[in-house]
Amino acid sequence: MIQNNSVCDIGFIGLGVMGKNLVLNLADNGFSIAAFDLDISKVEGVIEQDKAESGLSTARVIGCTSYTELLSRLKPPHLIVLSVPAGAPVDQVCENLIGAGIQPDDIVIDTGNSLWVDTVAREKKYKNNFILFSSAVSGGEVGARFGPALMPSGSPYAWTRIKPIWEAIAAKVDDATGKPIERTKPGDIVTEGEPCAAYIGPAGAGHYVKMVHNGIEYADMQIICEAYQMLRDGLALSSDEIADIFALWNKGPLESYLMEISVEVLRHRVGEDQTPLVDLILDKAGQKGTGLWTAVSSLELGTPAPTIAQAVYARSISSFKDLRVKASTILSGPELITLDKNEKQAFIAQLHDAIYSAKICAYAQGFQLMKLAEKEHDWQLNFASIAKIWRAGCIIRAAFLQSITEAFERNPELDNLLLDDFFAKQLSKHQMNWRKSVSNSALMGIPTGAISSALSYYDSIRCAVLPANLLQAQRDFFGAHTFERIDKSTGKKYHVNWSTPTRDMVEIG
Amino acid sequence: MIQNNSVCDIGFIGLGVMGKNLVLNLADNGFSIAAFDLDISKVEGVIEQDKAESGLSTARVIGCTSYTELLSRLKPPHLIVLSVPAGAPVDQVCENLIGAGIQPDDIVIDTGNSLWVDTVAREKKYKNNFILFSSAVSGGEVGARFGPALMPSGSPYAWTRIKPIWEAIAAKVDDATGKPIERTKPGDIVTEGEPCAAYIGPAGAGHYVKMVHNGIEYADMQIICEAYQMLRDGLALSSDEIADIFALWNKGPLESYLMEISVEVLRHRVGEDQTPLVDLILDKAGQKGTGLWTAVSSLELGTPAPTIAQAVYARSISSFKDLRVKASTILSGPELITLDKNEKQAFIAQLHDAIYSAKICAYAQGFQLMKLAEKEHDWQLNFASIAKIWRAGCIIRAAFLQSITEAFERNPELDNLLLDDFFAKQLSKHQMNWRKSVSNSALMGIPTGAISSALSYYDSIRCAVLPANLLQAQRDFFGAHTFERIDKSTGKKYHVNWSTPTRDMVEIG
Repeated sequence: MIQNNSVCDIGFIGLGVMGKNLVLNLADNGFSIAAFDLDISKVEGVIEQDKAESGLSTARVIGCTSYTELLSRLKPPHLIVLSVPAGAPVDQVCENLIGAGIQPDDIVIDTGNSLWVDTVAREKKYKNNFILFSSAVSGGEVGARFGPALMPSGSPYAWTRIKPIWEAIAAKVDDATGKPIERTKPGDIVTEGEPCAAYIGPAGAGHYVKMVHNGIEYADMQIICEAYQMLRDGLALSSDEIADIFALWNKGPLESYLMEISVEVLRHRVGEDQTPLVDLILDKAGQKGTGLWTAVSSLELGTPAPTIAQAVYARSISSFKDLRVKASTILSGPELITLDKNEKQAFIAQLHDAIYSAKICAYAQGFQLMKLAEKEHDWQLNFASIAKIWRAGCIIRAAFLQSITEAFERNPELDNLLLDDFFAKQLSKHQMNWRKSVSNSALMGIPTGAISSALSYYDSIRCAVLPANLLQAQRDFFGAHTFERIDKSTGKKYHVNWSTPTRDMVEIG
Repeated sequence: MIQNNSVCDIGFIGLGVMGKNLVLNLADNGFSIAAFDLDISKVEGVIEQDKAESGLSTARVIGCTSYTELLSRLKPPHLIVLSVPAGAPVDQVCENLIGAGIQPDDIVIDTGNSLWVDTVAREKKYKNNFILFSSAVSGGEVGARFGPALMPSGSPYAWTRIKPIWEAIAAKVDDATGKPIERTKPGDIVTEGEPCAAYIGPAGAGHYVKMVHNGIEYADMQIICEAYQMLRDGLALSSDEIADIFALWNKGPLESYLMEISVEVLRHRVGEDQTPLVDLILDKAGQKGTGLWTAVSSLELGTPAPTIAQAVYARSISSFKDLRVKASTILSGPELITLDKNEKQAFIAQLHDAIYSAKICAYAQGFQLMKLAEKEHDWQLNFASIAKIWRAGCIIRAAFLQSITEAFERNPELDNLLLDDFFAKQLSKHQMNWRKSVSNSALMGIPTGAISSALSYYDSIRCAVLPANLLQAQRDFFGAHTFERIDKSTGKKYHVNWSTPTRDMVEIG
């Protein structure tokens, strides 16, 4: 227990939903916390909740009323965790800590959803005042309370101090099976298993990796939603029937947290007439930016992430509800196709293989993007380790991440997940059903932007000769952009003088 | 003729390929030019070429050796056209002009490929020194010489001075038919028809519109390339056979400059054994950025442009040649499908309708993006006018732009091209063949990211109820992101307390 004059392990600033739950998680794991929030009722709230949950008469958390008091409650070098909104608030707190006398050896950990370039800038900006470290937190409020996936990055020295704390509060995985070890009640702690907290790299790397995690999450969710629409509109199945199919799929390679909660959601009924909740929800999806940042980064780095981009666009299109309702009365679709029982079974089996294959491609795109970013920013990322920490705690946690972990353990330099033996075999096995499913959706008029973009991606990656030869010729024709020749040395550029009568070819540079 | 002490109409800075041709175009149209370039040989070159082309003993262009001399050769307020690389060089020239004594009433027109936000910043930065006006130029070097499409924007006062010059040198269209009026030889001028130069809007608007033009151009080229690959790899046709099909298509609604040059390129043979050029060109496509800027802008503004993004990604994928060659030996495709003569004919007819429909969708995406940007930046864009100036001079010039012009003339407030009566009918007529073609490509293993993303876009736009209801429920489950209900008033938000046993629903705010 903390005496009023005692010294705490960790200072904590920002007690919103995520902050409060991280504090309670830290307390459960035996750390003492000096907590501060501009809103004093939040400080009181977390102290009360901690007392209630622990059943102890004194708190494991003490409240502070100022930054100065917070620092005085910690042993130097101070260790301070921030859980405040990304952007200006982070800088405001940093300035206040400087005002309160923070020292160059002290460590400040930003756990918010900062844009990774801001994190890089901040580390530099404050380097004479304190050590800014960052650690993205994934898993929402439940994850924060009972075990998040943590993506720490910044000073390796700071990491040595943070590591034992982060490994204690992180989600844990049974390393043999790759499955999460459950922890659901206040007071629970898990000391066995592998923690979902591994050092990612220099400043910014952790937030970048978290951004890509969210981009993949967008794709994963959209793929599930397209499957839902194929079953709802293609086969006219009810929410319960779709839930049954998803529940079955959740026992195979598609097992995942997102599939699991989709089943829960589809089965949830409300009101006196017990209407399925999903049938009452407006089909307009919101977004907070991390998905589009991922797509933007892939465009800027020149690496394909079409399935992630399609997932972002699907949310955009959903937001134009009035336009869609109007268009639905103007634009024609195909005639309704009715399937018999056997055809329906085949349709469902094909769809299963399609979403599994599309999912593999979405992850392949995300990992290739991280690989390109690593080169661009001179990071040293450990992809097996990243896949490992995503096996539990975070939103995309799934059995599937174990297979990705193994792929990068087999070959840490793997250029693309599709080249891994396991995934290549999976795709080769499922590709024909995937094709039939994409064909079904096109002929039935059901949009499957994510699933079909993944198939185009697959067919492009396995295509030794794309039609970009014609494209380069077009570019050379109207813009003298030159081309390379397959019968000449690499790197030599050629141009045809298209506007002269002889159209002779010249070597450039 | 210009006497050594006479005063010119226009000062011109930057005599690269585009600059030189713009100068010659201006001279043909009766304007006298004082020209400057850091490279004196370029100044001499344009003077010589002008003399040779005009057959006159004295030049219509005079050379200047300094910024000061350039200004002294012009009547105040000075009118100066820049054709220098985008970015730092533009600012360098602006600073030099300030040093040489440019006045606040003087007008500087940036014709380069500047990023539109840079143009906005520059107009502000230099407003006390001179009036910065901008005008994107489309049509490559041939366009610059014999009639480009011009997208001027900035100060309306400056436009009144520039307009007669711009209208003289721009490409011209027969307004009744929407077809370009040809001009191909030095000395030719065209005084009839409608000029492809219309005021776009405030600073930045012109460069933004040009950026979207290029994004559409990426999509258009990629769609043609996908058709080429379907015919090359799906039907095993030769370049000549494909050229014949494209030439036929170029007589119908697909008539366009890009289709026309594709035919020329496909027919071009080289070397002693007369190998088709395209078969010698390496299938790695380059890109300069405007396509990806367009995709990035669509992501940031939250409006779907999946077909444009797919075209950008197709170029990215093409650049990973080694990866593709390796993957081609590892990843399986479908078995070869052989078609009989009738099936081949059907395949080609379906493909025609597919690329026509996909093209409509790509343009719909581009125009909707401009509409969103207009709202965001408080511009007043005239979409009929934009479609009009794209009918000639620029790379995407096509008969098709006449139909778009008419759509926006019928309804200037049209939210999306797909809602226009003409295009809705075209799509409804062609959609079944489009579907079959997408199905063909999926089953045959030929990637058609642009064509199939357009179909998903079409099917999403005409879908009154997308699966985003499930997506919002997932988001509410793991992140408390709330949802709206179809049975409650618009804007009211609900949340289910998923982690409590009763899972009750609450109204939020």
